[in-house]
Amino acid sequence: MSQPVRAAFRDAMAHLSAAVNVVTTDGPHGRGGITASAVCSVTDTPPTMLACINRSSALHDVLAGNGSVCINVLPGDRQELARLFAGLTGLSMSERFDAGSWRAGQLGVPVLVDALASVEGRIVEMKTVGSHSVVFVEVEHIALRGEGDGLIYFARGFHRLPRIAPSAAVVREGT
Amino acid sequence: MSQPVRAAFRDAMAHLSAAVNVVTTDGPHGRGGITASAVCSVTDTPPTMLACINRSSALHDVLAGNGSVCINVLPGDRQELARLFAGLTGLSMSERFDAGSWRAGQLGVPVLVDALASVEGRIVEMKTVGSHSVVFVEVEHIALRGEGDGLIYFARGFHRLPRIAPSAAVVREGT
Repeated sequence: MSQPVRAAFRDAMAHLSAAVNVVTTDGPHGRGGITASAVCSVTDTPPTMLACINRSSALHDVLAGNGSVCINVLPGDRQELARLFAGLTGLSMSERFDAGSWRAGQLGVPVLVDALASVEGRIVEMKTVGSHSVVFVEVEHIALRGEGDGLIYFARGFHRLPRIAPSAAVVREGT
Repeated sequence: MSQPVRAAFRDAMAHLSAAVNVVTTDGPHGRGGITASAVCSVTDTPPTMLACINRSSALHDVLAGNGSVCINVLPGDRQELARLFAGLTGLSMSERFDAGSWRAGQLGVPVLVDALASVEGRIVEMKTVGSHSVVFVEVEHIALRGEGDGLIYFARGFHRLPRIAPSAAVVREGT
């Protein structure tokens, strides 16, 4: 694949909107987290999600070693946390966790208290595709917040997406 | 996995915002398309995307048979097309295509003219996970529109996401 096609691919992917998540883990290989937007639902039979993680990321082997993860779907006001766990600051992993409010989940992994949804599960497979691993997570425990705006990465920026549809939002502003 | 956990999983996934795409194909097994939001970028080395497709979908075997696909990232004003290709209307496949403006891509697959990005490629693997296949597509050709709002599915509804960040949008409204 030529370099121009790779650059065009990155441009195209910048237009594929995605929820912003922090994938966390804890266990014998240590505690850590990483911001990930290449995350999706695979099937509800059995409930399974996937996340694509760069194999050169420091967290990759920590995730693989621990085997337990939590996919925390960030709410609209958690842009700063996304930046921290994306490694865009000089903060240590422990300092990054200080920026959020966390509890230990049922699998012992860090669950973000104000996440829109927190999905704990175990890694059932890691499939290597080029530079990345596709990490398959079978879901065991779910926490739902039930309200809150979404946080989206689109066109190389963060966006806050109101939970209610724009037409409903206009009505609400008038009341 | 118990039924309550499966229901909670579906609720959680409703809060994982996602771009809305129509995945198309054409070839000896016929022409078709399906709306898909469980789509993500895997790696740019080599440029690869994945899409999770229900194995019971009529399009599943057509995609597998043809082997060539286009992932069309829908713009904010294409909500109706998303509904059509999700099978939420009684229209035939041919009638669904009539609702959009399409051209034949370099692999002969339908490319939506006003997609934010259209990514043509070949299926290199289909991995079965429960009810779904994870379809891995190695990218060969890319068309970019370069402008246009995003279309997001979040909290069980479609949302139009402005390309510019909200703060910039406010400034722009004032000019």
